[in-house]
Amino acid sequence: MQPILKENIITQLQWRYATKKYDPTKKIPAEEWEVLEKSLILAPSSFGMEPWKFFVVTHPEIRIHLVGACWNQAQVADASHLVVLSAKRNISLSDINALIERTAEIRNISPTLLEGFKSMVSEFINTHPALDEWATRQVYIALGQFLTTAALLGIDTTPMEGFHPGQVDELLGLTNSGYGAVLLCAAGYRQADDKYADLAKVRRKREDVIVHI
Amino acid sequence: MQPILKENIITQLQWRYATKKYDPTKKIPAEEWEVLEKSLILAPSSFGMEPWKFFVVTHPEIRIHLVGACWNQAQVADASHLVVLSAKRNISLSDINALIERTAEIRNISPTLLEGFKSMVSEFINTHPALDEWATRQVYIALGQFLTTAALLGIDTTPMEGFHPGQVDELLGLTNSGYGAVLLCAAGYRQADDKYADLAKVRRKREDVIVHI
Repeated sequence: MQPILKENIITQLQWRYATKKYDPTKKIPAEEWEVLEKSLILAPSSFGMEPWKFFVVTHPEIRIHLVGACWNQAQVADASHLVVLSAKRNISLSDINALIERTAEIRNISPTLLEGFKSMVSEFINTHPALDEWATRQVYIALGQFLTTAALLGIDTTPMEGFHPGQVDELLGLTNSGYGAVLLCAAGYRQADDKYADLAKVRRKREDVIVHI
Repeated sequence: MQPILKENIITQLQWRYATKKYDPTKKIPAEEWEVLEKSLILAPSSFGMEPWKFFVVTHPEIRIHLVGACWNQAQVADASHLVVLSAKRNISLSDINALIERTAEIRNISPTLLEGFKSMVSEFINTHPALDEWATRQVYIALGQFLTTAALLGIDTTPMEGFHPGQVDELLGLTNSGYGAVLLCAAGYRQADDKYADLAKVRRKREDVIVHI
């Protein structure tokens, strides 16, 4: 396998920025989009619960309606792709059972071998004071993996927290589905005249961010 | 620049797993660790607020004390590196001012040109019902970027939510520092006999996770 060069990783993470203007004529090729979907599917989560679902919105009319639910951010309609990242609501024992069954199936073992794991996760779920928030946090891991993967592929992205969750849920038919939108992410290719692309990247000083103990 | 191959990205994301046993004799080389620190420094956050600080704990005695605060997870002491990811507490106007000053400095512009941005972020901060939680979510993006970068470098990781935050804060001297530990992540190289490395990766079916609209 051709190694991934350290220098390339840093270059691409530096290159990334929250794209403001997309070229609506440029589409992400299917085989690259496949890598991005895989980055979501393979994203890590606590206990492997995957408390999420990802909606890839290509329907042009829905994309235009979503702009209105997203503080009129044009990227929602103009970018090649739009993902709505949703979190599972009201995680319960049935979610744990599904995880146990899936694990047993994939690993070709009896579910009874997973009783210890099941008890541990059940105890966690039963005593956690804010499961919806816990699920939401996991979705941010998936966002991080998605943004990093896109940068490495040379694909621009715009993560967005600023939208009306109720409206987005309604437009996607998520209301009462057990999932709720927590993040949006546009992906595609920057417009040549997006002036934000040329601005120097702002980060705090290294010593204010990283502390060695 | 040598391109990063799509196949390599998928291979590495598949390769990643939550490592249970580290080889304590194998250390991440400095130049690779540098890439991982850069992945944290360059991690995206809402408004570019970077509401976080990352503690790289190399002190062996502190690492051993941390094991006790982390449900005795041996990775905390055995892995080559350990990062404690903390979130800023009680974000206030002074954090916004620092961001504005830093932006003006790096972009060599007058802070007055950033008044619009400042108002927008201030409005957000002043009206947000749960800023500590918002900051915590951002830290999960940084974790995602860190985990993905490590996987691409062939470095094993173990993200951890399970620890006593108060104890970790105390061991690191974070109590009343304005930052609080929200995640830990061990990084290094798997022990050859870590049986978890060989288990088939469990993920829900693609159609249960990705929905095209």
